[in-house]
Amino acid sequence: MERNTVAVLVAGSWGTALARVLADNGRRVALWTRNSAQAEEINTNRTNARFLPNASLPEGITATTDMEAALAGAEAAVFVAPSGSMREVARQAAKHVKSDALIVHATKGFESETLKRMSVVLAEELGRPEERIVVLSGPSHAEEVIDRHPTTVVVASGSMDAAEAAQDLFMNESYFRVYTNPDVVGVETAGAIKNIIALGAGLTDGLGFGDNAKAALITRGLAEIGRLGAAMGANPLTFAGLAGVGDLIVTCTSRHSRNWRAGSMLASGLRLDEVLDRMGMVVEGVRTTKAARELATRYEVEMPITSELFKVLFEDKDPSGAVGALMGRVRTHEIENPELRQSGN
Amino acid sequence: MERNTVAVLVAGSWGTALARVLADNGRRVALWTRNSAQAEEINTNRTNARFLPNASLPEGITATTDMEAALAGAEAAVFVAPSGSMREVARQAAKHVKSDALIVHATKGFESETLKRMSVVLAEELGRPEERIVVLSGPSHAEEVIDRHPTTVVVASGSMDAAEAAQDLFMNESYFRVYTNPDVVGVETAGAIKNIIALGAGLTDGLGFGDNAKAALITRGLAEIGRLGAAMGANPLTFAGLAGVGDLIVTCTSRHSRNWRAGSMLASGLRLDEVLDRMGMVVEGVRTTKAARELATRYEVEMPITSELFKVLFEDKDPSGAVGALMGRVRTHEIENPELRQSGN
Repeated sequence: MERNTVAVLVAGSWGTALARVLADNGRRVALWTRNSAQAEEINTNRTNARFLPNASLPEGITATTDMEAALAGAEAAVFVAPSGSMREVARQAAKHVKSDALIVHATKGFESETLKRMSVVLAEELGRPEERIVVLSGPSHAEEVIDRHPTTVVVASGSMDAAEAAQDLFMNESYFRVYTNPDVVGVETAGAIKNIIALGAGLTDGLGFGDNAKAALITRGLAEIGRLGAAMGANPLTFAGLAGVGDLIVTCTSRHSRNWRAGSMLASGLRLDEVLDRMGMVVEGVRTTKAARELATRYEVEMPITSELFKVLFEDKDPSGAVGALMGRVRTHEIENPELRQSGN
Repeated sequence: MERNTVAVLVAGSWGTALARVLADNGRRVALWTRNSAQAEEINTNRTNARFLPNASLPEGITATTDMEAALAGAEAAVFVAPSGSMREVARQAAKHVKSDALIVHATKGFESETLKRMSVVLAEELGRPEERIVVLSGPSHAEEVIDRHPTTVVVASGSMDAAEAAQDLFMNESYFRVYTNPDVVGVETAGAIKNIIALGAGLTDGLGFGDNAKAALITRGLAEIGRLGAAMGANPLTFAGLAGVGDLIVTCTSRHSRNWRAGSMLASGLRLDEVLDRMGMVVEGVRTTKAARELATRYEVEMPITSELFKVLFEDKDPSGAVGALMGRVRTHEIENPELRQSGN
């Protein structure tokens, strides 16, 4: 039986980890990158040292800088470009993607200028119906997936056929479990906003506030994600699932999270440009903070964590002042909607 | 202005930490313990070394083994006995508690024999209406509270007057924030069951499954808590709040959690009795696993994590087999209730 080809674009840590899952599942993977030195390193050394220092990549992955070759005959195209370059990568890919290829993305963020979700950007550039695009998300650090640690993710699409095709593509019995969910808006919104909360969790940890304070922040973060998501049309149950609370927990509490690390560096007194310099990788939470603040205005949703983070990132607000403002907010009843509260007596 | 007395029973780590909060708020605190050596240590050295090794206790706290003296004139009684001795402590206290005293408890578990919630046990033994009892819960490791790290908790009661009185008692501006919630069943159920999930999280961590797997387990744990809680009459929103997801996160991810530690020791191959020996403190999750398994049967609720944990704890099931069973459960759609799913096309 011939093995089918899947194209993965681009070769960052998550793209590379997903390429390994596909190779482990018996697919021939074309891993596209703009960087010819990186392509050569992958093909010759079987490593991608900048993004996944200790990983050894299977033979089923072939890196290439040739977009046409990557997509020629590929039954599926998996877009994992940073949110800031997704439109451009999709535009380059558009004329080479097979018309019946499955389109999946696994990028967590919004397009900065337009505030559009990634599936919308892809639909526009590839000329596909939005409801045929699949988003893959969930608690899934690339550093663990590349080592085949047990991981569960969600694939969401307006088309259950497309979601199930993506499930078949990625699911395996040994370490990668995939659930379907029809709620694209919820999965994409949760995946993007959790990076903001992770920056905040890095701040509170960096400032030494402790685990109690961080748990309170994450709890409020979940409410904040849910408020925006609901306003955008998401199913509230999505936020209680793997792409919601699951991904939020792993991003806020794991040493692998780069958004958390960026937050803890900010707490140590570094400026944003210094932090980004030292990270050497895209920190999605930074640009998502800007986008979410605008979405909060557009949808008239209160997003206090996003708002304080924005001040720290872009208005030089002192991090401890920001966390203090979040901890000290006046609210006495836990359940915000008064209709859901019983009356006191 | 005379400072009012509050009695706290008993002097474990959480009782002692809450006594510090009350002393910091200007209350005179009588901290009851059955152990006269411990009482003397607290009064003489201002330490409680077995439970909070590095803490120094303020002068406002006086330990006593005399129940009558502890409760004489106390405007509030705060019960923090382990769930297994709550009824007996309450029975001893009953004849000494002032009839108008505020009754608060901060114990996370069910009574093993009866499966009753702690507020029900207190109401029965103290002869008070159940709806006047207050439960205090949330993400709040004693080790951080004793050091005055920022902490947020929930006080829940069927009487909003009683909840607000407890809020006034514990709330301060500097590190301890208190929210009210009318949902006693939800707060008590969440607080109890999360200890089971923390045991499971300790198991997965001890077995080296990684952060992705743990986040998936916690996400399913939250669903499991919510299912039982809803069947028992709780408000689903409580599980998205501080006493639900907040406490679950801190218990499953913090080095301070003794349930997590017990789980990780089980993963290393120790038997339950060896683990409990080494802990030297009550591990509420162990007895809660038994109780919750019976509650699952009574309320006809599916609780797979509880059920696997029960097998590990009491039926010598191999921990990696149990975690494997949890990771490998067949489920393809993330949202369980089919009515909440859109149809595929």
